[in-house]
Amino acid sequence: MAVEYYDFGPHKIHHSSVFYTSNLSFAFVNLRPAVTGHVLVCSKREVKRVADLTDDETIDLWRIAKKLGRQLESYHKASSLSFGIQDGPQAGQTVPHVHIHILPWKSGDYENNDDIYDDMNEKEKELNRALKVDVERKDRSIEEMALEADEYRKFVF
Amino acid sequence: MAVEYYDFGPHKIHHSSVFYTSNLSFAFVNLRPAVTGHVLVCSKREVKRVADLTDDETIDLWRIAKKLGRQLESYHKASSLSFGIQDGPQAGQTVPHVHIHILPWKSGDYENNDDIYDDMNEKEKELNRALKVDVERKDRSIEEMALEADEYRKFVF
Repeated sequence: MAVEYYDFGPHKIHHSSVFYTSNLSFAFVNLRPAVTGHVLVCSKREVKRVADLTDDETIDLWRIAKKLGRQLESYHKASSLSFGIQDGPQAGQTVPHVHIHILPWKSGDYENNDDIYDDMNEKEKELNRALKVDVERKDRSIEEMALEADEYRKFVF
Repeated sequence: MAVEYYDFGPHKIHHSSVFYTSNLSFAFVNLRPAVTGHVLVCSKREVKRVADLTDDETIDLWRIAKKLGRQLESYHKASSLSFGIQDGPQAGQTVPHVHIHILPWKSGDYENNDDIYDDMNEKEKELNRALKVDVERKDRSIEEMALEADEYRKFVF
C-alpha cells in the first residue's frame, strides 16, 4: 500500500502534495510558498541538523535538489534559483527536520523597477524575500497543493 | 609550486584566504562577511550555475560544506548554520561562479531582544541578514583575512 502521509518534523504531509520520492528523500509543494514554485526537499529519516545526515542522505538530497531545481526553473520559465537550508533555530528553522528550500526567480521580477540606480535596493528586497520562507504567509488548501504537485509529476522523473 | 591565486569568477582569491581544498573545491574566508565566520565553498572549475556542476563536484561541495559547517559552528560557539546558494543573478548571485555560503548563528543573537512577542520580527530580521550576503558590506584587508584563514587551518582537516 502506498504511503498516505510523510513525516515532516511534527507535521504530516499528505501524499498528494509529494511529487517526487527516492529511497532516502521526498519533495513536496509548500503550504506557504514565498514565491511560485517554492518547494521543499526533505530527508525521509527525521533528523534535525545537516550534521546528523549520513553521506548517502546528503548526496541524495542535493542530487534531487539540483535536478528538481533545473526542472522547476524551466517549467516556471524562471531564470535563477535559491537553494537554502536553515540549519537550526537561530538560522530561522521552524520545522526541526532537515529540508532544502528551492525558490525559482524570474527576470520579470525586476521589471517593476524602471530606475537602474535602485537595483541594489531591489536586489536586497529580492534577497530578503528569498529567505523569508517561514514567516507571514497564508496556508493553502490541500486541493490547491495537490493540483500543483500533479503538474510537477508530469515532468519530473 | 603551490597555487598562489584561486579563480572565483573574475576575481582572484589569494591562497592566504583559502583554508581548505580538495581536488574539486576550495573554501575561503569572505571579503565582506555578513556575520563572523561567514565563509564560501566554491568549485575549482568555473561554472555559473548549479546545473552545470558534475555529480562529483556537487557531492564534493556539499560534503565539504557539511563538514566545515559543523567545525565552524563549534569553533565560533554558534548553535545554527545557514547554507545557501544564490544560483543565478535573479537570486542575488553577484559572482557568476557556483559557491555555497555558510553562516554560523549564535543563540546570543537573540539576547538583545527582551520582548518575546517581538520574536517573529527578530527572526525575520535574522533571516534577512542571513541572505544579505553580497550587499553593503566593507572590504577587509588581505592580512585580516589571512589571520582568519590561519585560525581555521588549525582545526579543519
